[in-house]
Amino acid sequence: MGIDPGTNFMGYAIIRTAGKNKKPQLLVSGVLDMEKLEDPYLKLQRIFQRTLQVIDSYHPDELAIESQFFGKNVQAMLKLGRAQGVAIAAALQREIPIFEYAPKKIKMSVTGSGTASKEQIALLLRKFMEIETASETLDETDAIAIAYCHHLQGSLPSAGNSKSRDWKDFVKKNPDKIV
Amino acid sequence: MGIDPGTNFMGYAIIRTAGKNKKPQLLVSGVLDMEKLEDPYLKLQRIFQRTLQVIDSYHPDELAIESQFFGKNVQAMLKLGRAQGVAIAAALQREIPIFEYAPKKIKMSVTGSGTASKEQIALLLRKFMEIETASETLDETDAIAIAYCHHLQGSLPSAGNSKSRDWKDFVKKNPDKIV
Repeated sequence: MGIDPGTNFMGYAIIRTAGKNKKPQLLVSGVLDMEKLEDPYLKLQRIFQRTLQVIDSYHPDELAIESQFFGKNVQAMLKLGRAQGVAIAAALQREIPIFEYAPKKIKMSVTGSGTASKEQIALLLRKFMEIETASETLDETDAIAIAYCHHLQGSLPSAGNSKSRDWKDFVKKNPDKIV
Repeated sequence: MGIDPGTNFMGYAIIRTAGKNKKPQLLVSGVLDMEKLEDPYLKLQRIFQRTLQVIDSYHPDELAIESQFFGKNVQAMLKLGRAQGVAIAAALQREIPIFEYAPKKIKMSVTGSGTASKEQIALLLRKFMEIETASETLDETDAIAIAYCHHLQGSLPSAGNSKSRDWKDFVKKNPDKIV
């Protein structure tokens, strides 16, 4: 499961992977729109609830989110952190391990370039993955890209993620997993 | 309930208030020490679990936390936001309304000065509240101060918090409440 929680929108995506040699399949993706909500706690509640709902519907084995090491201002980062925090809490409650990747790494994984546009990412994701629905928007693309990036870390023997050892052990034991 | 979640420590405090004219009583306060934990997700899990535990033990009617509008760097703010986010998720899950106060407002509420030291705050809290145990550390003081600040907002007719109307209505209906 890949999620991209923000103050006004949260993209989410569930992909199924079936070993190294098969294209991963997009099971579902969507966007939670909170733009019209004024109460910041109502927004956080929606993020928490939707994340739990998606987890309980698709039972993902892992959750991947974006880390962010630079960005707007400190106040925006606090809000982003809170949005990520409630989504993380939903995964913790269901005992789902969490992995995070820098935005540049996610773009690199999909396109080979750290500065690719959302449109380029969407185009390449369609090429690399079995995507059956045509409904996903660019808002969802980030979440799909995060899930796809995490899929690659597990599949590549050179995965450099700090948790890659546990993760690779897990993959060995669970060749047909849902991310 | 007042909480002050951070990356390495979370202070928490539960106070009972019984109307304007009585001193609020400190029911419990404590510090969750996560300094020895390396995995940031394990830290977040501990914050989530402890917050739920305290809520389920004392059934507070409201939760108050510190807002922060400036601070270290964006990366530190993201971490702080995540820590706050998982604690907020615990309150959301138990349907407890959340209120937040700027650090300066909290200091002002207790001491009349926005630049008071933690020691000054601790001294005055002892004067204004019924504190029976002597165990609370300066780490817990922040959480007690947050809860006390929230108590004052509910009691003062001039409360300027954006949610003060709902809150005042609530106080009218619930003179003996636990914060």
